[in-house]
Amino acid sequence: MTQIVLEPLRGFRDILPPDSHALSRLAELFSRLAEAYGYMEVKPPTLERFQLFAVKSGEEIRRSMYVFKDKAGREVALRPEATASIARIYLKHLRGRPKPIRLYYVVNCFRYEEPQKARYREFWQAGIELLGEPSIIGDFEVIKILAKFYEQIDMLDNIVLKIGTTKLYRYLFAKYGIGEETQDHILHLMDKDMYNEAIEVLVEAGHPSLAGLLEELWTKARNSIDDAKKIVSQVDDEAVQILEEFGKLVVMLREYNDRLKLEVDLAFARGLAYYTGTIFEVKVPGFPVSIAGGGRYDNLIELYGGEKVPGTGFAIGLDRTLAAMRELEIRPRHVYEAKTQVAVLVLNEALTAYAARVQDILAAKRGVSAVLYTGSKLQKMLPKLAKQGYRYAVIIGEREAREGKLVLRDLEKREQRTIPIDELENMDDII
Amino acid sequence: MTQIVLEPLRGFRDILPPDSHALSRLAELFSRLAEAYGYMEVKPPTLERFQLFAVKSGEEIRRSMYVFKDKAGREVALRPEATASIARIYLKHLRGRPKPIRLYYVVNCFRYEEPQKARYREFWQAGIELLGEPSIIGDFEVIKILAKFYEQIDMLDNIVLKIGTTKLYRYLFAKYGIGEETQDHILHLMDKDMYNEAIEVLVEAGHPSLAGLLEELWTKARNSIDDAKKIVSQVDDEAVQILEEFGKLVVMLREYNDRLKLEVDLAFARGLAYYTGTIFEVKVPGFPVSIAGGGRYDNLIELYGGEKVPGTGFAIGLDRTLAAMRELEIRPRHVYEAKTQVAVLVLNEALTAYAARVQDILAAKRGVSAVLYTGSKLQKMLPKLAKQGYRYAVIIGEREAREGKLVLRDLEKREQRTIPIDELENMDDII
Repeated sequence: MTQIVLEPLRGFRDILPPDSHALSRLAELFSRLAEAYGYMEVKPPTLERFQLFAVKSGEEIRRSMYVFKDKAGREVALRPEATASIARIYLKHLRGRPKPIRLYYVVNCFRYEEPQKARYREFWQAGIELLGEPSIIGDFEVIKILAKFYEQIDMLDNIVLKIGTTKLYRYLFAKYGIGEETQDHILHLMDKDMYNEAIEVLVEAGHPSLAGLLEELWTKARNSIDDAKKIVSQVDDEAVQILEEFGKLVVMLREYNDRLKLEVDLAFARGLAYYTGTIFEVKVPGFPVSIAGGGRYDNLIELYGGEKVPGTGFAIGLDRTLAAMRELEIRPRHVYEAKTQVAVLVLNEALTAYAARVQDILAAKRGVSAVLYTGSKLQKMLPKLAKQGYRYAVIIGEREAREGKLVLRDLEKREQRTIPIDELENMDDII
Repeated sequence: MTQIVLEPLRGFRDILPPDSHALSRLAELFSRLAEAYGYMEVKPPTLERFQLFAVKSGEEIRRSMYVFKDKAGREVALRPEATASIARIYLKHLRGRPKPIRLYYVVNCFRYEEPQKARYREFWQAGIELLGEPSIIGDFEVIKILAKFYEQIDMLDNIVLKIGTTKLYRYLFAKYGIGEETQDHILHLMDKDMYNEAIEVLVEAGHPSLAGLLEELWTKARNSIDDAKKIVSQVDDEAVQILEEFGKLVVMLREYNDRLKLEVDLAFARGLAYYTGTIFEVKVPGFPVSIAGGGRYDNLIELYGGEKVPGTGFAIGLDRTLAAMRELEIRPRHVYEAKTQVAVLVLNEALTAYAARVQDILAAKRGVSAVLYTGSKLQKMLPKLAKQGYRYAVIIGEREAREGKLVLRDLEKREQRTIPIDELENMDDII
């Protein structure tokens, strides 16, 4: 006898009902939705070369990866996110396909971070990537699918879509000759709400005027595209143009569905270093972390050694979404489905095969789960089953089996009737 | 620009359509089935303490685990199978629940083995565990669900269920005073078809008479329970009784569904060292590996430091099942579903939001996938879309948007008609 540790590893979870079911239902709903919009599933391997993720994952993720050497000495990592693998899959398998290419995935990801509320070391992400669509129509498409997902799980009125654009910063930083590493670092600071530190980095790098401009933008025009356009017009027309285009996307989204609450935030940046354009996150007011996020990454494929392929996409944090649903007490029936439980009681072992056929008929009915029980002490079993949540009991004795019948008992109403097995098959409303 | 390696790691795969979809459909079908028979989903963590798996996984699996130290120095492993985690979850969360307890899972597992046909280093398993049911009714239940799964994917007539019992060997070995480690080793040799070596081990351990008895059993009564009963009657009644009970299970299964082909094999053993009773595997004649397997493990919970809880269950190799389906050219519609593809063409960016609503209506229809396309050169786009597999195009110009209409074009028949948007919504058979 070995005494094993019963706790899962720190930051990991045993997911049990109803959460396990709800998580699976969310994943399935998402898959159906993505397919309805023309996206195809890809399943990347859970383990990849460390190098793949190291290229462009952003400082924080790089530090928190599960990296180890396999038995052949390869440096491998459990994926911290899926987009890098999707880029690799595109380059290996899909390069020649007509664009745009629409891909979706549902995967578990791993990050060695301090566990917090709704933050685990293993977590589930469901996402889409749209490759080869350079215009804001692409951003519109992915955001619209994201909104549709939250609509389908009755959360649309509870979320806020925070939206901004990295393109403005990439453009300004490039114009001022700021190297890519410093760019990534400043965006990382912005992501962490460390705006003063970001300004300092710019000043120290010898760009006080840009620092001043951004400070003005962040304090005076953070939520107004029109005001921001005036400020960046000090730089050049191209910068204004970028905001103009971004504004069109916002209008398009408003026109499409006015129930989707948008929060334009021009000081917004995201942790992953590969974003180049529109970025967005789904927030639930009062919930500590964002529950979904994404954006445009027009250089990623190129960074991995391919041609330039514009890309845009998102990932939904399924665990976080579920945690937010729980907090909001949103329990849609199609996510938290409760099946009618039926116990099939076999009063004699020799009747098991007959009872199993009855069970099969019941189990094939939508919304019913049927379980076999053996025993002879009927009067003891029935109240026990009712207590365990069974709504009906089917009782099968020798006479019933011989006559091709069964006794159906309503454990709540304490009523029962004998019916032929083929009637059970044809009655849809019997239970 | 970094040149990254495009190949997945050795033994790993990028799973693309149609395999990715088929794999997901198999997992969903399995989940629905398990729930219909009263099983609840559990999602154990992918990463566990190495010790958990080391206890009772069997020699081969122990050697081939992905083990590493995490950042805090814990010795962790990617799960090679799910039953050990389920046992842990039972002990931590479910001990007080009324028995039997019915659990199911769909998980990816990892083994560092030489890649071969239908054998990968990451693979998908879907399984159930029935805890607290000591009788053969439990074995009957799980095998019946396994058969039902293969029936649902149109494979029932292509599989053979090989069935045997470890109970006989555990009983004989214990009676002859053979230690557990040697027992596991002999069963491991039997699993590898190394029967001569198994006999040698018995002889060397000082049990020539048992060795002789098993040799007789394996050569003369391997497939006949009645003949085997005569041979083991030399030992004692208990041994006969074990085979008697096993025979009842076989009869029950035959009576339940005569389409399920059973291959009784009394020399059969399985790799996992925790089996104590009935064991079984699903084989496809001509296919090199078994595609599912399971058995009874009445000591596992106890081995992990708990009370004695009888258990029985199985795991389906989803990748292997899919590979076998491909080889048999079995393509059930509900596994390989091909959606009708519809392209929604937006002739002017300003009409995107209207087009998106049309797309939503189409995408909400069962069996249809709808995709937005922007462009102005209609005559060039239509043949291209037909070539890409689109069956219909919906064309939206300014006039259509103004009048709340759309043009629906059949790209195969080259016919089109204009219909109002609300008609599209109500017509189920339009596409």
